[in-house]
Amino acid sequence: MHKTLKDKITTADEAAALVQNGDVIGASGFTQAAYPKVVPPAIARRARRFHERGEPFQVVLFTGASTGDELDGELARAQAISRRYPYQSHPDMRHAINSGDVAFADLHLSHVSHYVRCGFLPRPTVAIVDAVDVTPDGKIYLSTSGGSTATYLQMADRIIIELNRHFGPALGAFHDTFTPAPPPRCSNIPIYSVLDRVGEPFVQVDPNKIAAIVECDLPDSTSPFKPLNDVSRAIAANIVDFIKHEQKMGRMPKGLPYQSGVGNVANAVLTALSQDPDMSPFSLYTEVIQDALFSIIDNDKLVAASCTAMLFSPEGQSRLHREMPALKEKVIIRQQEISNHPEVVRRLGVVSMNTALEFDIFGNVNSTHVMGAKMMNGVGGSGDFTQNCYLPIFMAPSTVRDHTISTLVPMVTHTDHSEHATKIFVTDQGLADVRGMSPVARARHIIQKCAHPLYRDLLTDYLEYGLRHAPAKHTPHVLGKAFDFHLRLQKDGSMLPK
Amino acid sequence: MHKTLKDKITTADEAAALVQNGDVIGASGFTQAAYPKVVPPAIARRARRFHERGEPFQVVLFTGASTGDELDGELARAQAISRRYPYQSHPDMRHAINSGDVAFADLHLSHVSHYVRCGFLPRPTVAIVDAVDVTPDGKIYLSTSGGSTATYLQMADRIIIELNRHFGPALGAFHDTFTPAPPPRCSNIPIYSVLDRVGEPFVQVDPNKIAAIVECDLPDSTSPFKPLNDVSRAIAANIVDFIKHEQKMGRMPKGLPYQSGVGNVANAVLTALSQDPDMSPFSLYTEVIQDALFSIIDNDKLVAASCTAMLFSPEGQSRLHREMPALKEKVIIRQQEISNHPEVVRRLGVVSMNTALEFDIFGNVNSTHVMGAKMMNGVGGSGDFTQNCYLPIFMAPSTVRDHTISTLVPMVTHTDHSEHATKIFVTDQGLADVRGMSPVARARHIIQKCAHPLYRDLLTDYLEYGLRHAPAKHTPHVLGKAFDFHLRLQKDGSMLPK
Repeated sequence: MHKTLKDKITTADEAAALVQNGDVIGASGFTQAAYPKVVPPAIARRARRFHERGEPFQVVLFTGASTGDELDGELARAQAISRRYPYQSHPDMRHAINSGDVAFADLHLSHVSHYVRCGFLPRPTVAIVDAVDVTPDGKIYLSTSGGSTATYLQMADRIIIELNRHFGPALGAFHDTFTPAPPPRCSNIPIYSVLDRVGEPFVQVDPNKIAAIVECDLPDSTSPFKPLNDVSRAIAANIVDFIKHEQKMGRMPKGLPYQSGVGNVANAVLTALSQDPDMSPFSLYTEVIQDALFSIIDNDKLVAASCTAMLFSPEGQSRLHREMPALKEKVIIRQQEISNHPEVVRRLGVVSMNTALEFDIFGNVNSTHVMGAKMMNGVGGSGDFTQNCYLPIFMAPSTVRDHTISTLVPMVTHTDHSEHATKIFVTDQGLADVRGMSPVARARHIIQKCAHPLYRDLLTDYLEYGLRHAPAKHTPHVLGKAFDFHLRLQKDGSMLPK
Repeated sequence: MHKTLKDKITTADEAAALVQNGDVIGASGFTQAAYPKVVPPAIARRARRFHERGEPFQVVLFTGASTGDELDGELARAQAISRRYPYQSHPDMRHAINSGDVAFADLHLSHVSHYVRCGFLPRPTVAIVDAVDVTPDGKIYLSTSGGSTATYLQMADRIIIELNRHFGPALGAFHDTFTPAPPPRCSNIPIYSVLDRVGEPFVQVDPNKIAAIVECDLPDSTSPFKPLNDVSRAIAANIVDFIKHEQKMGRMPKGLPYQSGVGNVANAVLTALSQDPDMSPFSLYTEVIQDALFSIIDNDKLVAASCTAMLFSPEGQSRLHREMPALKEKVIIRQQEISNHPEVVRRLGVVSMNTALEFDIFGNVNSTHVMGAKMMNGVGGSGDFTQNCYLPIFMAPSTVRDHTISTLVPMVTHTDHSEHATKIFVTDQGLADVRGMSPVARARHIIQKCAHPLYRDLLTDYLEYGLRHAPAKHTPHVLGKAFDFHLRLQKDGSMLPK
């Protein structure tokens, strides 16, 4: 290592001492992939020392998306966060947000870097990033995720690098880092196929801004994938049947890439697509690549994959280690503004598949708020893709919590994706294709195809009551009854009447 | 006129006889600009004759957006429409939709042509278009709007042309018609500045598909603009102050083009921008150009304007007639999928200004549904722009109907634009800039800046009640009380308590 860099090597606690009360941290990390793991716990310790002395210590935290316990968990428990952008999923951070202790602004992930650069959001003062390599002239090579790290590095005054030896510097070459020029002097994003490289494999920074380098050797702290359950399998089978049908009808060209949300259901769908003998090889243009990538490869179905994060189970990470040269030929990691960019998503014709928290009979989707009030994780990239993709598919188990909650409700308590954009709904019960339908036709079709039998009559009753009593029959809502399902759940613990 | 075309000249009634029960009509027209005015009333007469004989006669109607009485009005009154796409604003059509007689699917306007070409929506069988010229080899020159007309012409089996002599063939040269290639074999939309021409000034069709030509000489049936009222003036002044402030702070580069919704408030805002001595000349990249264009020109402030429709008052139409050569240098008419295209809107950094029907304290916007049930007009292009623009601004009078309705409510009854995308809210009371704020911070700021004083305490009471009683404090909604404003309005005729 070059002397100028060697001189910057320090401990986590010394690096944390560079972070002051009121700082705005821009951290790497998108899901459990490539968030800093060593310095944040030291910042949490520092915050606790301040608080014990009765002194304030809180920072604003930007990341790519959710992160793991060492960042979101530690800092939330230390009460060291005042504001959080743009997504999270850690139980302690979620609790702090829903208690009103952390001000959380939940943003479309393609907008974050752009808004930071435009000065619409607080400017990151300190960037803390997980990196696989750094050069004396300021080239930083990122690890398993792109996130919004390039923008945070470029905007920050001080840079703290966690130089993580775990995957080795070869991982850096997965990245393609491209920052669009600001409007009005803008160019296009010249990505015309999934693997097109349009930027550099590193982020260039002023080397004088690198304030500290902390060495470590840590994998991403991920969990093994849960075995598939019947509900996930049923949802996946419904989607595979639909895609094959659409391809046969000529409405879905075979070269369209897929985007798939994060989690077990999304993983199950891609695995099922790869296992189907009638499916041609396909590409992913997505936010997060999970272990399904390996099923697709093993079934000889992978053409190419673009993402902003590789979220692999511990077993998947070992495989990444072993097969890095081969994977590098077919997988690219981008900044999240490019993985989710409307221009590219629309151009490539991405088929988008995301999970709904709840959806309503008229086709509106809630991805974020339990009972309209409690933040779950955030809207993430679901809006970027839903609004701009070739065809958006939303999926959910028809019921959860032992049938006490129907994910299909009369009216969603928060709308993240409106009836104007949504098209296809899938549960374990079936698939509703509501393209071109009016709200009432949609309601009948969604109830018939997607509702759990326990809830079918209740949902139909609401629709029929509305058609008799609502102020209009276009979307026949009756506001005094629209949340009856939710109010019953709140009062009696079930959406089903006693 | 060439003989092959001359032979196709016929009467409106003969042309209407080419339309059969069950046909899918793709018509030109975007607002009152360039919709067919002669053949649709003949189709309405034909429908009535069928109905009098007890025979069915209904068609599906696609247009660019809303149209005037001769199309939406006549066909709605004749009960000749079964399904309507993708936008409307005629009272009789609206009544038919809200009575449940017409199935209306309300779509983002940038999606329509694409979805029609992909086979997601019924295929137009008959195209009926207002045109200023047609050539024997099938070049059709459109009139005052682009809409989705190119796609309808290309997909339809039969084409009926209303050859409208009113503006003369020179108007055709305003158009730039470009159809993106279907994914996955797609290219970019090579528009890098407002006036870039990327297509042809005509729509090329197979001349054999031209089934009838009906000659006419009719202006667009528009109304004069209403004189500005104090509320519009106050909203406009708030927006002008804000834009000047943002420019000064370096957060809004001066070359960014503006998009502005349809109507008197939008017209007032653009007029006020052009009258401000401190504003540099600017461009429009918008859906509909209204008479404000002439104020901008007269104040020496017009750089360039791109639209999909020129909706001018009768006086404005006369001026278009007189000044056509000069206007042609600075104004371009595109198909609506390009005027509203996410790729171009994001690239150019469009500043978007649209009217909200109602909005809520947490920043969600309802553009479409009265009481969550009754369709007003449709979402139009507001979603295309809000999701992809540089900065979205929503505006509304703080109250309507003699203060009995507050446009700012605890919870919107339908969400067209969610809190994840919205940023700036403006009423006659003031302007709330909620960039980067959490929902609760947004609520306090929006109430303080935008609420009418009559409603300020009621809105604050809801927020404070939620902070005490909601299931979570992130977005402290209490579902049993969220629609109290609306239920009071329904019961007592006012959102204010008795």
